[in-house]
Amino acid sequence: MLRSYMADYSTEQIIKGLATIVGKDHVSISNPDRVAYSADFWPKAQIWKLGGDVARFKPDVIVWPEDEDQVSRILKFCHERRVPVIPYGAGSGVCGGTIPIHGGVIVDVKRLNRMRAIDFRSATVMVDAGINGQLLEDRLNAHGLTLGHFPSSIMCSTLGGWLACRSAGQFSSRYGKIEDMVLDLRVVTADGSVVDTGKRSPGAPDWTQLIVGSEGTLGIITSAQLRVHPLPEEQRFRGWRFKQLPDALAAMRRIMQSGLTPNVLRLYDPFDSALALGKKGGDEVTESPIDRVAATLNLGSLTDAGRSFVAPLIKRTKERAIAGALSAPSVVNKLIHAMPTSCLLIVGFEGAATSVEEDLWRATEILTASGGQDAGAAPGENWLKSRYNVSFKQSPMYAAGAFVDTMEVATTWDRIYGLFEEVRDAVSPHALVMAHFSHAYRDGCSIYFTFAAFRRDPAKAELLYDKMWTSALDAAHSAGATISHHHGVGISKKHAMAHEHGEMLRVWRAIKDVLDPHGIMNPGKLFPDGAGAR
Amino acid sequence: MLRSYMADYSTEQIIKGLATIVGKDHVSISNPDRVAYSADFWPKAQIWKLGGDVARFKPDVIVWPEDEDQVSRILKFCHERRVPVIPYGAGSGVCGGTIPIHGGVIVDVKRLNRMRAIDFRSATVMVDAGINGQLLEDRLNAHGLTLGHFPSSIMCSTLGGWLACRSAGQFSSRYGKIEDMVLDLRVVTADGSVVDTGKRSPGAPDWTQLIVGSEGTLGIITSAQLRVHPLPEEQRFRGWRFKQLPDALAAMRRIMQSGLTPNVLRLYDPFDSALALGKKGGDEVTESPIDRVAATLNLGSLTDAGRSFVAPLIKRTKERAIAGALSAPSVVNKLIHAMPTSCLLIVGFEGAATSVEEDLWRATEILTASGGQDAGAAPGENWLKSRYNVSFKQSPMYAAGAFVDTMEVATTWDRIYGLFEEVRDAVSPHALVMAHFSHAYRDGCSIYFTFAAFRRDPAKAELLYDKMWTSALDAAHSAGATISHHHGVGISKKHAMAHEHGEMLRVWRAIKDVLDPHGIMNPGKLFPDGAGAR
Repeated sequence: MLRSYMADYSTEQIIKGLATIVGKDHVSISNPDRVAYSADFWPKAQIWKLGGDVARFKPDVIVWPEDEDQVSRILKFCHERRVPVIPYGAGSGVCGGTIPIHGGVIVDVKRLNRMRAIDFRSATVMVDAGINGQLLEDRLNAHGLTLGHFPSSIMCSTLGGWLACRSAGQFSSRYGKIEDMVLDLRVVTADGSVVDTGKRSPGAPDWTQLIVGSEGTLGIITSAQLRVHPLPEEQRFRGWRFKQLPDALAAMRRIMQSGLTPNVLRLYDPFDSALALGKKGGDEVTESPIDRVAATLNLGSLTDAGRSFVAPLIKRTKERAIAGALSAPSVVNKLIHAMPTSCLLIVGFEGAATSVEEDLWRATEILTASGGQDAGAAPGENWLKSRYNVSFKQSPMYAAGAFVDTMEVATTWDRIYGLFEEVRDAVSPHALVMAHFSHAYRDGCSIYFTFAAFRRDPAKAELLYDKMWTSALDAAHSAGATISHHHGVGISKKHAMAHEHGEMLRVWRAIKDVLDPHGIMNPGKLFPDGAGAR
Repeated sequence: MLRSYMADYSTEQIIKGLATIVGKDHVSISNPDRVAYSADFWPKAQIWKLGGDVARFKPDVIVWPEDEDQVSRILKFCHERRVPVIPYGAGSGVCGGTIPIHGGVIVDVKRLNRMRAIDFRSATVMVDAGINGQLLEDRLNAHGLTLGHFPSSIMCSTLGGWLACRSAGQFSSRYGKIEDMVLDLRVVTADGSVVDTGKRSPGAPDWTQLIVGSEGTLGIITSAQLRVHPLPEEQRFRGWRFKQLPDALAAMRRIMQSGLTPNVLRLYDPFDSALALGKKGGDEVTESPIDRVAATLNLGSLTDAGRSFVAPLIKRTKERAIAGALSAPSVVNKLIHAMPTSCLLIVGFEGAATSVEEDLWRATEILTASGGQDAGAAPGENWLKSRYNVSFKQSPMYAAGAFVDTMEVATTWDRIYGLFEEVRDAVSPHALVMAHFSHAYRDGCSIYFTFAAFRRDPAKAELLYDKMWTSALDAAHSAGATISHHHGVGISKKHAMAHEHGEMLRVWRAIKDVLDPHGIMNPGKLFPDGAGAR
């Protein structure tokens, strides 16, 4: 039964109507499908699952349209019947953005996956929103082009998901975030209307920037026009060590303000660096914080200095080690942060071979003057190899009874170190905290925190999880940061959005009332229910 | 009398109320003030004036608040009494955006002119919106910084006006448009509420990009946080000649897509180039199209080739020459376009001395390969000297009985030449047409058309003016362009906005109903009255 907004229609009636639109092979009410679409990668949903609550919120129906016209007819059908609709790409979100908390119809757009046209002259491409990220990049590569967007989720996320959540790729310092790459969107709104958000640089409000980041609450993005770039002739990556985190942050800032455009500029805090610079050849970096926590707690990958500090806390077997360390996060955090460990900064450039060489020289001058020590090419190249590991590999941590989450916040350079300290101190009593600084711009950068905590009892784990998040978000706000840099908002941050958007919530409500008068589009996401109501 | 939305209050009551807020010295109902604030630089208003209709739409009151709090109290006061409010910066707009067509209160924010704080670390600045553009730049320069925003109106426009109209400066290829420079806005909405549009890169809709370009219809921008840059060590400018316009366009495109970031890249069409490359030392470029038309028709500044074509049409005295040529625009257009004149491309770079040198070399390779011929430094340097002449000097053309207007449209590279031809051909029967291509990006550029026509009888001149604009806008739309690149919309383009914004007009209306329920904010601008009403 569609349990929410409507009572006048049975699931059977809905199924029948949808089958008329997409064909009966492209609509499902099977239980395995409903379970599969019950959650994205939100860690809180993992806690539910591990506690035996396998699919807390199941959709009633899943439908797979093949084109914009079918999307339009599906929405019109659901709009008329007040049935909730949850747009769905690849389900790699980590904020619960696709969890069907009011039931309803999941509209999975993965079949809208065509690359429609490349305009080589204008260096733009028109692409369907359901296309897989790596597939889009591969197709562009075949024409000597790149989008320049490389989120760690690239193998398990879609263009539409990137746009809906204001995604940032690992090379955002050079190519910008997805909102900087998009020129035009086609969107189907709740009643089935197809809207073109308009051309570049319009007079009057920029509607594209209204839809980007709306997480399926204003409509379903069906296609986008994007800027593309020629594939770089060469890429080079290097690592640099800094004794002090603030010096390394100053170096990042100086590089971005010098006019250089590194593809990647990524600084690991002492804890994260200790793991990143751990053994196995000395300079192995694995991009998965989960793997790193697990590896560290297994001691093997800690530096000697780190090992001597942490060893007493940790037992020999992996699971017991994790449990032990995570039972006393506050102590471990303090010890790790007191460790004489250096920070690791990964720096990369791409483009014509000559300019890459020169950019690296200019960066070297800045990095050396800022107190950095060249750690050679290995840390950068290892980072490159493992850069997608974080998203699509599930973690041994869960098996060990722990949970892990990440939070990406951003602010200007003057506040960045304060933000780091405030969040770290706020979360320290609840979880192990490590961080890296990335997505650097002229005016600031983002901090990507990883939290790891222990869950013995599922109910308690959920309480601990919520406490950890509340502390972290409060600290981020008090430090003057924006609470969502590129993961989106979903359910996990929606209650903090009122603080962030204040007066403009009324505008949000008005827009919502026009584009989705019955409130069927991804209800309960992005803003609290009823946010901005007069 | 406040002639519009309200009848219950006399002007005296309004004056008294406003004087309580700002002091009696900062509010005026004097006729000279009302005439002075009756129009901005919209050429149509010039036609009215020259026809003897000196101040067709006068405001009832002008008020000069000194800070955000006074702006808030003024708006609350007007909101409660349904009095129209027209935000006013320096009045340099060319689309009628500040003309008080429904009467009401002009709120001139020029006294909000403080540079509040420079954050050297984050390379940002907080500035009041009423500050004069050149003054802001001078103050930044004193600290070794630049905003990088140089509209031709810089000496007679304000930061708030730039933001309200999505202004682009002459160095936009390097620094972006004003909407790319702004991180955060403070805005007072109709009921006096103060809104902060939020931090960079937010999750959810980007409210800053809703207010930017809203031309005073959603509120009054009181201050902004902007990105700033170090002053460049060196600037270099050069001219290049191309026999064929499409080759020159291809060269512009290749430079932008090569990864180079010229500060200026500006291509004059054959007509415009004929004037730009005219005599007085061979390579003098004056940035004022008005001066150029006047000068040309005076023959003196035409090339020999140009002179031999155009001479028969033109009499000896300046006024009669202008009148003669403009009486037969179609013939002159055809003759000029048949002239064996080359196009002129101005190219500039700035930054560290070594990188400027190198960038010029790389650009030279591209320009030469595209068929360009180096015309030396003189055209570039002359352009630089005269680049602000267009905005604040009034034209001898009006005195001669002609009128001149400009239209800036933009599209992607694949459509740019078609756009040029369509608009030129559409306007040719009505006016002399010249154009330059500027504000180049990776994906496209804008075309800046100059139209000059003859007005003997004011009523007929207005008809001709409207016909010229309708033809031009229709042609731009049919060529797939966006109709406002950086002048804004005001009154002159508002009727074309329905076409451009389509379905989103409903969203516009909803936003307007929330932020300005009584419709007092700059009524009759940006969109047609009642646009988007359900």
